[in-house]
Amino acid sequence: MEEVRLIEVKEEIMSDNKITADDLRARLKEEKTFLLNLMSSPGAGKTSLILKTLETIAVELKTGVMEADIDSKVDAEKLVAEGYTAVQLRTGGFCHLDANMVSQGLEALDLKNLDLVIIENVGNLVCPAEFDTGAVKNAMILSVPEGDDKPLKYPLMFTVSDAMIIHKTDYLAISDFNVQMAKERATTLNPAIKVFEVSSKTGEGVRDWCNWLVGEVKNFIGD
Amino acid sequence: MEEVRLIEVKEEIMSDNKITADDLRARLKEEKTFLLNLMSSPGAGKTSLILKTLETIAVELKTGVMEADIDSKVDAEKLVAEGYTAVQLRTGGFCHLDANMVSQGLEALDLKNLDLVIIENVGNLVCPAEFDTGAVKNAMILSVPEGDDKPLKYPLMFTVSDAMIIHKTDYLAISDFNVQMAKERATTLNPAIKVFEVSSKTGEGVRDWCNWLVGEVKNFIGD
Repeated sequence: MEEVRLIEVKEEIMSDNKITADDLRARLKEEKTFLLNLMSSPGAGKTSLILKTLETIAVELKTGVMEADIDSKVDAEKLVAEGYTAVQLRTGGFCHLDANMVSQGLEALDLKNLDLVIIENVGNLVCPAEFDTGAVKNAMILSVPEGDDKPLKYPLMFTVSDAMIIHKTDYLAISDFNVQMAKERATTLNPAIKVFEVSSKTGEGVRDWCNWLVGEVKNFIGD
Repeated sequence: MEEVRLIEVKEEIMSDNKITADDLRARLKEEKTFLLNLMSSPGAGKTSLILKTLETIAVELKTGVMEADIDSKVDAEKLVAEGYTAVQLRTGGFCHLDANMVSQGLEALDLKNLDLVIIENVGNLVCPAEFDTGAVKNAMILSVPEGDDKPLKYPLMFTVSDAMIIHKTDYLAISDFNVQMAKERATTLNPAIKVFEVSSKTGEGVRDWCNWLVGEVKNFIGD
């Protein structure tokens, strides 16, 4: 198996993260590369959704992934094993990524040959919502086993996200998760949020989610 | 329904958290009150495990709960609705509790009449592991839908916990979660960790977990 590229990233001391993030977006626009920041709790299924997404859009877009983890590279290894382009960022204890960390990670990817880079942020429904990574759009996963009350408890995550994926819908049969309630709670916080119902296991809803993503990418890179 | 007591807690600027935590434990020893810090990802089932635990040990111990949330009081409301003693701490954006916040919360409880107080920490597998809350023991929940690879990705949480509850075991039938693998990964990080397999839904394993907890409480309060 190909060795996974591992980058130890450090937080920029006293930086103005917002300026770094805006600079990064301007650079991405020039490079014609769309950057998606994907956030969720641990275990909500970020890696499996990414795998399913890459597979589905492979004929349409050239893709790469930046995996972020506190202290492992298991996620990037999974992607590389499937033949995808991926680097692993190790945050060394940090609970989130900021724009400077993401810039360090992008240096390891050949942006000229990529239409879309997906950041798999650290598994955390709190801290990543507070930092602009420089991504063009933010998406978050709420998995069915987590419960439909999460917008009440982690409102910032739902407020900063452009899209919410209700994930692991195959668990709905044995769960008391109320899809309508989850949608209402999320759209109360953020009326513009796009909601998708997806099971990466069965493939349900994957195409809808990918259609939205591909549309956003093409719009940004001017294709 | 009784109104839930809500306390806005603030982080002590420039404090030495470890000293505050040790002072708190000394005070708890004098008061003969055991403090348990319960941590997990969002949606791993902290509140349902607490409800099941309180119900199971009601005849043995006098209990209270401190719920922590960034911005809601739904968890404490659930407990109070069931007739239990609970206060809600609102961290105002903070992703964890420290010992000073916990001290502020304990002031709202009548410790003289409580053998055990359970802290339901903020739903987060990263930050809460970094702060000593002053609790006598730390417990963490790993829920089956989250996956058995979490010890690899969030090692500190497994290292600082005295007990790990593998929760929602009723999901095992439709999940590829490997219990043996999760145990091995956790005990590699922390050979002393106690592991329990629990479903708050079916009641499976609840008694084992409660036996351990009651034993620890009685040992500490000298009963």
